[in-house]
Amino acid sequence: MKINDPEILREVEAAFARYEAALISNDVAVLDALFWSDDRTVRFGATENLYGHAEILAFRQARPSKNLDRELRNTVITTFGDNTASATSEFVRPGETRIGRQSQTWVRVEGNWRIVAAHVSWMV
Amino acid sequence: MKINDPEILREVEAAFARYEAALISNDVAVLDALFWSDDRTVRFGATENLYGHAEILAFRQARPSKNLDRELRNTVITTFGDNTASATSEFVRPGETRIGRQSQTWVRVEGNWRIVAAHVSWMV
Repeated sequence: MKINDPEILREVEAAFARYEAALISNDVAVLDALFWSDDRTVRFGATENLYGHAEILAFRQARPSKNLDRELRNTVITTFGDNTASATSEFVRPGETRIGRQSQTWVRVEGNWRIVAAHVSWMV
Repeated sequence: MKINDPEILREVEAAFARYEAALISNDVAVLDALFWSDDRTVRFGATENLYGHAEILAFRQARPSKNLDRELRNTVITTFGDNTASATSEFVRPGETRIGRQSQTWVRVEGNWRIVAAHVSWMV
């Protein structure tokens, strides 16, 4: 199994960057598209545990679209073979000192990179 | 890509159960073995961000071995193809009400299922 094949890594880095841009601009359609459209998709947020694509979308639609800006730190993206990747990153919001952590499992589903599981939290 | 192939799912469920048993009994050797032995392995704990297998092992070795018992809830294990899985679970510790969340990305590396990224946090 090839780890961090350059071409695969570029694909996932592009998908990751697209997600981040959508998150900061609250582009719900893109966020929604990048999560695997399946009942088995899981997203643990800082304050909520969401099961299935429908719960995740409902959360996005209800979320205030302010103060979403953040700076990523120590991002690590690793690809495994042609269809799997892990993406982790720390983040901080402007004017805050607490450290956020985001981890995503990406899988190429029917040709498209999708987040099949995500976890966001604050370090305590 | 086959999702939740029964044989693959059984393999990952067994690896997941082995990890959980090792965690509760603080079996550092098994915990260490089940994490991918690589500098790119990432583990976000409730109070720490660890990069690379060596940092994860050092954390395990320094960790007090008391009060590790916990009950899992809403565990979701999903396999993608033959070599990738996501495992998420909520957990509670005896006598506590706060909700913990654990997510793991499992990859079959050189024939063995290994955690390549993990994230543990408390819901706030």
